Amino acid sequence: MRGGCEAIDSDWACRSNRPMDDTGGIAEVTSGGGVMRFPAAKPLRLDSGATLSPLEVAYKTYGQLNAEKSNAVLVCHALTLDQHVASAHPTTGKPGWWSRAVGPGLPIDTDRYFVICANVVGGCMGTTGPASTNPETGEPYGLSFPVITIGDMVRAQAMLVETLGIETLFAVVGGSMGGMQVLQWAADFPEKIFCAVCIAAAARHSAQNIAFHEVGRQAVMADPDWRGGAYEKAGVRPEKGLAVARMAAHITYLSEAALQRKFGRELQRDGLSWGFDADFQVESYLRHQGASFVDRFDANSYLYITRAMDYFDLGAKHGGVLAEAFRKARAVRFCVLSFSSDWLYPTAESRDVVRALNAAGCRASFAEIESDKGHDAFLLDEPQLDATLRGFMAAQAQARGLA
Amino acid sequence: MRGGCEAIDSDWACRSNRPMDDTGGIAEVTSGGGVMRFPAAKPLRLDSGATLSPLEVAYKTYGQLNAEKSNAVLVCHALTLDQHVASAHPTTGKPGWWSRAVGPGLPIDTDRYFVICANVVGGCMGTTGPASTNPETGEPYGLSFPVITIGDMVRAQAMLVETLGIETLFAVVGGSMGGMQVLQWAADFPEKIFCAVCIAAAARHSAQNIAFHEVGRQAVMADPDWRGGAYEKAGVRPEKGLAVARMAAHITYLSEAALQRKFGRELQRDGLSWGFDADFQVESYLRHQGASFVDRFDANSYLYITRAMDYFDLGAKHGGVLAEAFRKARAVRFCVLSFSSDWLYPTAESRDVVRALNAAGCRASFAEIESDKGHDAFLLDEPQLDATLRGFMAAQAQARGLA
Repeated sequence: MRGGCEAIDSDWACRSNRPMDDTGGIAEVTSGGGVMRFPAAKPLRLDSGATLSPLEVAYKTYGQLNAEKSNAVLVCHALTLDQHVASAHPTTGKPGWWSRAVGPGLPIDTDRYFVICANVVGGCMGTTGPASTNPETGEPYGLSFPVITIGDMVRAQAMLVETLGIETLFAVVGGSMGGMQVLQWAADFPEKIFCAVCIAAAARHSAQNIAFHEVGRQAVMADPDWRGGAYEKAGVRPEKGLAVARMAAHITYLSEAALQRKFGRELQRDGLSWGFDADFQVESYLRHQGASFVDRFDANSYLYITRAMDYFDLGAKHGGVLAEAFRKARAVRFCVLSFSSDWLYPTAESRDVVRALNAAGCRASFAEIESDKGHDAFLLDEPQLDATLRGFMAAQAQARGLA
Repeated sequence: MRGGCEAIDSDWACRSNRPMDDTGGIAEVTSGGGVMRFPAAKPLRLDSGATLSPLEVAYKTYGQLNAEKSNAVLVCHALTLDQHVASAHPTTGKPGWWSRAVGPGLPIDTDRYFVICANVVGGCMGTTGPASTNPETGEPYGLSFPVITIGDMVRAQAMLVETLGIETLFAVVGGSMGGMQVLQWAADFPEKIFCAVCIAAAARHSAQNIAFHEVGRQAVMADPDWRGGAYEKAGVRPEKGLAVARMAAHITYLSEAALQRKFGRELQRDGLSWGFDADFQVESYLRHQGASFVDRFDANSYLYITRAMDYFDLGAKHGGVLAEAFRKARAVRFCVLSFSSDWLYPTAESRDVVRALNAAGCRASFAEIESDKGHDAFLLDEPQLDATLRGFMAAQAQARGLA
């Protein structure tokens, strides 16, 4: 550990009891991690101009860092996910969100790589966010938490990685908002990464995506229990609003074909209720998604992280020329992946990224993976994704001398 | 007028002062109409098994019924629209919602046709709906209003048409939920229609569409001012919840391309607010859509009408064989239209309708109209739509001897 940071809460380091996942993978992963606290002397400088201090970053690790410290893989998580990428979620008890890709013998092989995953700044799973205590008031930040960006999330990750004594990451990998972070890493810290995998993401948030996020935020803010963001102090939670936000968002993570295949017009019971109960299975499914989400996520974190995604526009600083953002990333080996049925981050947006990478002279592989599962395909059983990820990682490991 | 019904509220009959619309059409339309009250002896028998009485149907008419009563065109409206198809909306003062298609010299030519448009059962613009007085309690129905279907809406329209002394409609025309009603007319009253135009609709509501409707309903019901549907009695209105519902729905009426073209990532002001104000124009636009909607629409009507759409599955009664629903409609001339960028009612669903019409031996024209405007294209400036509608109507008028 460097720079006077302290790792706290190390009881998080544990051997996970990962239940059997639906791929049949039951290997246990040796996991570590904890919460890294950065002192006042090392504040997080934010894109807004503000600083955040003290900063705590909650993270998990899997596998072993080699002696050369050359086998570290940073996995960046999506909007509502967290650091529990390959071990059970402490609240829900469910397997890690990418247990099917991260683990011994899996595409991100914890027998070979030292995998790090950190909860993003603004999150609610241990990293400093709007539910943390504002040192100026001694109360939860709420809306006094500064607006953060994808760049801020990445800067906090870079502080963590440096403190762990790692100069260069072998890989940065992520899907959805995680993919945005991957691109931001390539733009801001190209010298610190060997390769980069950006899945189902884009270099800027589209008008339609901003629109859906705004619906979610308005749903949260419309809930009287939101209390202008100060619900924690009031001992309430805007659960109904957050559930509605999640329901709307959840539709965008799927595809019409997937919804049709999974649910169609199937009913919950024999016959219609002739009322407003959940008649259709798809209604019941969505209600469940909303209800279970509020148990594991903080409403203000939802506002801040969606805002960070909306603000994301990697080319903006460069007069809208995305390639300029990647000018210094020529040595980074990129893999860009999209899914054919993803309408949240359609393939066209991944192609824009690849075009910019090519224009910048970077090495970029690109694949559109055929899937009817929509945006969420990156989390699901997609053999083509597994094969592509496995092949890319293995080839880069060889190039890096890790094989 | 037949059957002891009375036309009330006839002050609605007026010469509209339609402001100039964006097509440059400024012709005034002679309009009539009012509210038709059906006595207890003529209740509306509902698909649920319940009956609705007394029933009032608010409607508008444009143009003159000819001596043979052979030139009547029924226009069926979409979810949140109403009978004010070609004259100013009494609440908003805006031009009729289809002023660009219905009027003198327009595709649905009020110089030639007698156009009728009625507010649907369950609506909130004068036809009996959840805000109407429940005769059993003397209070607004609220959730004691029976769940209604597209079939019920059409049955009420048929009662109106019959009472107006019209045996056969020259045409039934509608887009979106209006298109569903057109198909229902063809299934239930094929002998009463000469031709039918179904625009941007489907023969059954998809899982994704049910999902979006459920989000909207949950948003309304999450608002504490909804009061279990009894908000009117309490003197409040679930405005925030209804606005969120509208915002979510509104995104589905557009297309990603249209949002990108109209708004992209354009900001409201110079620079970001670093907060939760509407930074992006698309946010401000959506907020406006939500806020203005609650001024003109009733929250319970929104619940009931979305439910009617979700329940719509024209083939279900026929063992899922849609063609069976159209078996008796062989004499009806159909025109089915879709828009290439409509993801709410994609072209594939119109093709399913056309396939079933063909299988039933009906005469069906079909066109997919190229447009990037999404579902709302049916209400917007689409010259190809105008031309197709004009051509179809004129050809059918000739066949009907109206030319």
